[in-house]
Amino acid sequence: MNIYPSDDGKAAFVRLARGSDLLGGLTEAAEKLGIEAGTVQAIGAVDDLTVAFFEPETKEYEPIRIEEHLEITSSLGNVSLKDGQPFVHVHVNAGDRQGRVFGGHLVEGTTVFMIEAYFRTLGGPAPVRELEDDIGLAVWQ
Amino acid sequence: MNIYPSDDGKAAFVRLARGSDLLGGLTEAAEKLGIEAGTVQAIGAVDDLTVAFFEPETKEYEPIRIEEHLEITSSLGNVSLKDGQPFVHVHVNAGDRQGRVFGGHLVEGTTVFMIEAYFRTLGGPAPVRELEDDIGLAVWQ
Amino acid sequence: MNIYPSDDGKAAFVRLARGSDLLGGLTEAAEKLGIEAGTVQAIGAVDDLTVAFFEPETKEYEPIRIEEHLEITSSLGNVSLKDGQPFVHVHVNAGDRQGRVFGGHLVEGTTVFMIEAYFRTLGGPAPVRELEDDIGLAVWQ
Repeated sequence: MNIYPSDDGKAAFVRLARGSDLLGGLTEAAEKLGIEAGTVQAIGAVDDLTVAFFEPETKEYEPIRIEEHLEITSSLGNVSLKDGQPFVHVHVNAGDRQGRVFGGHLVEGTTVFMIEAYFRTLGGPAPVRELEDDIGLAVWQ
Repeated sequence: MNIYPSDDGKAAFVRLARGSDLLGGLTEAAEKLGIEAGTVQAIGAVDDLTVAFFEPETKEYEPIRIEEHLEITSSLGNVSLKDGQPFVHVHVNAGDRQGRVFGGHLVEGTTVFMIEAYFRTLGGPAPVRELEDDIGLAVWQ
Repeated sequence: MNIYPSDDGKAAFVRLARGSDLLGGLTEAAEKLGIEAGTVQAIGAVDDLTVAFFEPETKEYEPIRIEEHLEITSSLGNVSLKDGQPFVHVHVNAGDRQGRVFGGHLVEGTTVFMIEAYFRTLGGPAPVRELEDDIGLAVWQ
């Protein structure tokens, strides 16, 4: 990956490597940048898409898989701490050849074609994620 | 709601309370943070969605209502001043169980399941909204 | 266009003029603000939409055209340098009267109805775009 940091160390552009995993690449970038609390946003294109829909009744993420090249029309999220490590939470919208947009919660299994991301640190104590039983998700405490 | 401010007071993460109104919660957060000019972005999930489409011929917002649990795949907008008060203008994209994405101008009537928002102040004079007759909307003067 | 800069000169809100071209207006704003590296995000509405889908096999952008008024539910991207000039790369999501969302890579040919944009400089050396043959796009080197 290519990293283009700001002079004050509080932000950076990142270009992810072709063929890498989108969520994995964003997580690796957050680690390299030393971001424990911050925002992330990205656009670009991918060779396939794996997102998930959180089913509140079963409290399970149900995968949604699209096996084609797509534009990433938006990718928006944050970095915070989970189990003491930087954790990237990102939701994605992706457009197909007809311009129809699909999206959800980004999970592993999305192959980068070309991604340009932007990170910015919060500059304050990181929110910490812990499982909240009634929601079924690890949320900011 | 839980607020996680930056040390310089210019930004914050916010987790909205489950069951609260999405637009109402974002507006309350902007007020608590004392933001008159800034950006807001959010991801998460909702138990239903009410957005609107501004019909330019009638100059009316037409509501679009979806009565199901959805992922908020993106929520993007700004805070500025309208009638002397902080006014949150946000557009939303939301994905269903099949990953299809719906969206529009956020209005009241969207129930938070879990929302993680980020606010950042502009750090300058706030734009002021006033009704512009030919557009039919209160826009930045 | 109306520009509302931050006091430190690192960010600005911009309202684009009705009837202007969306990509052209964002590019003109970046030039006026003197931004060579930064992020851009916008919401609003347009009278029509022209986006493109990059076809990796032919390495050509295929246009997608929608001839109706749409909400811009998100517009997200960046400014960097291409051929020594600020170059705006933005992807767009847009919602129709039924709330269905369409999107892709923004190209010329989208008419602004009302657009509120936000720019923030990276505050560091700008990434430089150059054509990378195996991808077929001018990407950050």
